[in-house]
Amino acid sequence: MSEAVNRQILLVEKPTGKLGPEHFKLVDGAMPAPKDGEALVRTRYISLDAANRAWMHGATYRAAVEANTVMAGGSIAEVVASNSPALVPGDIVFGDTGWQDYAAVPAKHLTKMPRMEPMTHLLSIYGVAGLTAYFGLLHVGKPKEGETVVVSAAAGSVGSIVGQIAKIKGCNVIGIAGGKDKCNWLTAELGFDAAVDYKDGATFKALRAAAPNGIDVYFDNVGGDILEACLALMNNRGRIACCGAISQYDGVPSAHGPRGVPGLIVVKRLIMQGFIVMDFIDQRDAALAELQSWVTAGKLKVQEDVIDGFENTPKALIGLLAGENRGKRMVKV
Amino acid sequence: MSEAVNRQILLVEKPTGKLGPEHFKLVDGAMPAPKDGEALVRTRYISLDAANRAWMHGATYRAAVEANTVMAGGSIAEVVASNSPALVPGDIVFGDTGWQDYAAVPAKHLTKMPRMEPMTHLLSIYGVAGLTAYFGLLHVGKPKEGETVVVSAAAGSVGSIVGQIAKIKGCNVIGIAGGKDKCNWLTAELGFDAAVDYKDGATFKALRAAAPNGIDVYFDNVGGDILEACLALMNNRGRIACCGAISQYDGVPSAHGPRGVPGLIVVKRLIMQGFIVMDFIDQRDAALAELQSWVTAGKLKVQEDVIDGFENTPKALIGLLAGENRGKRMVKV
Repeated sequence: MSEAVNRQILLVEKPTGKLGPEHFKLVDGAMPAPKDGEALVRTRYISLDAANRAWMHGATYRAAVEANTVMAGGSIAEVVASNSPALVPGDIVFGDTGWQDYAAVPAKHLTKMPRMEPMTHLLSIYGVAGLTAYFGLLHVGKPKEGETVVVSAAAGSVGSIVGQIAKIKGCNVIGIAGGKDKCNWLTAELGFDAAVDYKDGATFKALRAAAPNGIDVYFDNVGGDILEACLALMNNRGRIACCGAISQYDGVPSAHGPRGVPGLIVVKRLIMQGFIVMDFIDQRDAALAELQSWVTAGKLKVQEDVIDGFENTPKALIGLLAGENRGKRMVKV
Repeated sequence: MSEAVNRQILLVEKPTGKLGPEHFKLVDGAMPAPKDGEALVRTRYISLDAANRAWMHGATYRAAVEANTVMAGGSIAEVVASNSPALVPGDIVFGDTGWQDYAAVPAKHLTKMPRMEPMTHLLSIYGVAGLTAYFGLLHVGKPKEGETVVVSAAAGSVGSIVGQIAKIKGCNVIGIAGGKDKCNWLTAELGFDAAVDYKDGATFKALRAAAPNGIDVYFDNVGGDILEACLALMNNRGRIACCGAISQYDGVPSAHGPRGVPGLIVVKRLIMQGFIVMDFIDQRDAALAELQSWVTAGKLKVQEDVIDGFENTPKALIGLLAGENRGKRMVKV
């Protein structure tokens, strides 16, 4: 608590095209004073997510972020003072603190986390990324042993876990990722059966070759052309878990959706289902226990991409949107 | 059995644009001879469905129809001779007989129907139309009392039943149909709470005004712009029952899908689910019993649009695709 200032990164302007460093500004803000029911927390690791960019378009499952305010974002933080009986100094929490050193947040909006080493796992495998992968694949995609599961943004924080869980469940797993290195990593290190490099330009053909028996479950992180390609290759009664639409976030969203909606949905009797991790919050403990058992048994590799220095947060998000990261990206404050 | 000839209507050419009379030809064909396991049936009422047109584009849930063959189509028919122990002369069946006076069909592809007056009800309320409405609304859309249900092609064979069942279930029901007359009929005769005329040109605005609390269940018969409008108005955890895509059938299908896929599906956690009536065939008897109880109690009005004369079948389909019909259209052979 030696710092007198509260560094903050503001979103100074909402981007209309690609997000750039010019949309952010680092300022020294005031130390927030927690009101009744609030805790003062110090951010330790800021989570970077494609959703951060989606929030700039408008209301999503949360309110839109606004220009000239502290950029919104989740983080792992430590309680330094508390006006709530629910939390005491030293508690580790997850919450939407925004991009700043300190935040005053209603205790009811903070999730108390266990102390663990490395603490970064609270943002990756035991955080939103791991739970999103777990619930989205198992509760929405519902893969059966022997089925073919495809996941896009497969080298990302969620996708890399989705594919590994699908392997644990005995599925044939195909990842879609950008670049040869990522694709090699998926098959050589994470045990995916095949990987398709969408930067190669012939995604549909490559995917069809990799999935000769069609697709039973598609875990969609990207939307757009890749969703269109998967729709065309889905088997009857296939399931599409709609987790995100990264292809639509950084720039002007497409004026159209993928071809095949709703025609192929009818003909093949597909289910497309959107979800967010909060929908399954009541089953969090059981999910965490199972994830932990897989990590401990060495069946699930945790990949993190930790960037040092608060001031690098905007660059870290811009890079994530360009597909720089492998696994869960976060900033160590 | 005095006829010596078997009138047949051939699809002489697959349409690339709008379907017209020039795509069909009436010919005198040979009387078919049923093989072992087949029945010879005489068609009584030919069912006309938007799906007939979809089959011309390519494989759907059934093989594509081919040029220079008898046009495919379901009908209510009477068995006149049988080489199967499952059927005897005089039995009334439903099956894909095609557009012809007589057909030889494997008995296992025919569904035995009860004798009933009027027989036309076997194609409307107690046929594919009624069951599609029943299963699609109740098992896919799953409306709860007090929710807002929207159905497109609401004056059609399926839509008119969907809306009435939704009313029985205590929902706020909005139909989308083409033209003031149909819209008036929906509200005045069938008890819909509101109707939106898509020919008015401001569908999104009209729909938003009719559904101030948003849409919980959308029963989609049309796809395209109307699906896009509904997507934008869906409430969180809304359900879209994908039954058909009439807007895409008669002409060149759109190169794009509706905006909002998958973005709005994620954000609102929607479920879009395709289905066909065969998926629920094991629950047919219970569904028919419930439909019958509603008809008997006067809660469900049956609307049929019976066109006389086999030779008028092409015109009847072309008219159906143009939205001419009110309720279930069929041809009396």
